[in-house]
Amino acid sequence: MSDPVKPEQEPTWFDERHDYTGSSIGFRVRQRLHAEQTAFQSIEIYDSTDWGKLMVIDGCMMVTTRDNFFYHEMMSHPALYTHPRAKRVVIIGGGDCGTLREVLRHDEVESAIQVEIDERVTRLAERYFPELCESNGDPRAQLLFVDGIRWMAECEPESLDIVIVDSTDPIGPAEGLFNAAFYGSCLKALRHGGILVQQSESPLGHLPLLKSIRDAMKIAGFAALRTLTFPQPCYPTGWWSATLARKGADLSTFRERGAATKPFATQYYNAEIHKAALAEPEFLLRALA
Amino acid sequence: MSDPVKPEQEPTWFDERHDYTGSSIGFRVRQRLHAEQTAFQSIEIYDSTDWGKLMVIDGCMMVTTRDNFFYHEMMSHPALYTHPRAKRVVIIGGGDCGTLREVLRHDEVESAIQVEIDERVTRLAERYFPELCESNGDPRAQLLFVDGIRWMAECEPESLDIVIVDSTDPIGPAEGLFNAAFYGSCLKALRHGGILVQQSESPLGHLPLLKSIRDAMKIAGFAALRTLTFPQPCYPTGWWSATLARKGADLSTFRERGAATKPFATQYYNAEIHKAALAEPEFLLRALA
Repeated sequence: MSDPVKPEQEPTWFDERHDYTGSSIGFRVRQRLHAEQTAFQSIEIYDSTDWGKLMVIDGCMMVTTRDNFFYHEMMSHPALYTHPRAKRVVIIGGGDCGTLREVLRHDEVESAIQVEIDERVTRLAERYFPELCESNGDPRAQLLFVDGIRWMAECEPESLDIVIVDSTDPIGPAEGLFNAAFYGSCLKALRHGGILVQQSESPLGHLPLLKSIRDAMKIAGFAALRTLTFPQPCYPTGWWSATLARKGADLSTFRERGAATKPFATQYYNAEIHKAALAEPEFLLRALA
Repeated sequence: MSDPVKPEQEPTWFDERHDYTGSSIGFRVRQRLHAEQTAFQSIEIYDSTDWGKLMVIDGCMMVTTRDNFFYHEMMSHPALYTHPRAKRVVIIGGGDCGTLREVLRHDEVESAIQVEIDERVTRLAERYFPELCESNGDPRAQLLFVDGIRWMAECEPESLDIVIVDSTDPIGPAEGLFNAAFYGSCLKALRHGGILVQQSESPLGHLPLLKSIRDAMKIAGFAALRTLTFPQPCYPTGWWSATLARKGADLSTFRERGAATKPFATQYYNAEIHKAALAEPEFLLRALA
């Protein structure tokens, strides 16, 4: 990680050097706007020359203004256009509120609960990424700041249609979100046909981790899995994935007509992109066989 | 760009800071294995901890051992599975020989000519990326080390089926490969139904450049264009594109059955990935409308 940036100096670079992949991603920044140590993690906000604001948690890039749409759209719309009618959606993590905003674009959603452990992430998102928080006042939205693992363990059985695990990497506070015990809680809380969505890291850079996520979902008892891939410039390797797991039903189709006539604007997602995200590269087909 | 790496020191990082996009990509490296100034450009070779060898030209990452398969497969197989029977293929640039190798996997190809201006690129690829050069001895292959712009201008009309422009960015020696005059030479050299493939930069990071490439192809007189997208971790933003332009025919279909039963192994490309690469994200649909 680069040295902290002093205000009012010439543009410099924030480079995130990712040990696991041996690769780095960086952005040219003007200044660091904010830095704090919360009860859970360190959070920094930078102003960049070309990517808007950056949010960095424990040294890892979480969101940029310019490119977060890939991730937020692909964490939400594929699941929502696969489920026939998702009324009750829970987001575990997702404190920047970008996934919540996308979920609430769907009229069929009657309730969307965001369960973020660190309230400071949301407070800083409200300040530096107000566009991601524009649906926080929606009467269907509920923002909780509690431990998602415990919340899910205590959730009423068969009460949810979609659970989206929009977490940091499986180190630090998010570690307990990547195992069969947690996925078991999700399975129990989902109704029949319900869908779990887990951000599942880089298909190329984190393949062993992606496989372990899928294995844990299978052990937990999910009936079908699909891993979707999409670009995400601010994450290691610039290529990312979301894995969908379904309770008691398969994942072979989605509501293609619904997606093709979606009544809201997106920047990345559409019906063709949904199909494209389901295409499995040769190396991934072999690795997941 | 980082300081040159001295032999035998602890791993450090090579970061390519890309002014145009305001973003950087880097890899952890053990040492710099080679550096030279050729008649055309500077070439460096690094040994990385996780990505094999890196080739860097004028400070820009060209190829890593581990991830070049995305680019080389997507620069070749989509065009070859779109053309009904490409007998004569020319690669402009492509000195690392990885595109040549992929082209020669197709039995229908009777002749593949690589026209690289800088012989040193190929000589260093033979030494540090021998797997990319494994088809250089194929009797159908011809390696020329001359100026591709002039070669194409003097090429016999209606003599080629596919021209693949596998070049560096449009600064330095490759600048003349990104304009209507050069594309006009390609059009003239292609037979009816022939296809031009141009690496067309990052769909997100270089959108104005992508549009100018497409405009130049239209001005040159190509009948149909399609821009394909694919991951490429070692290039700026980690997401890249190739634009196909066709002479006197459309690009609405490809030989899907042929691609689905391809008689050779790939790491990324297959028929589903071909379709996926053709899907246009919402922002790109709007920008290219």
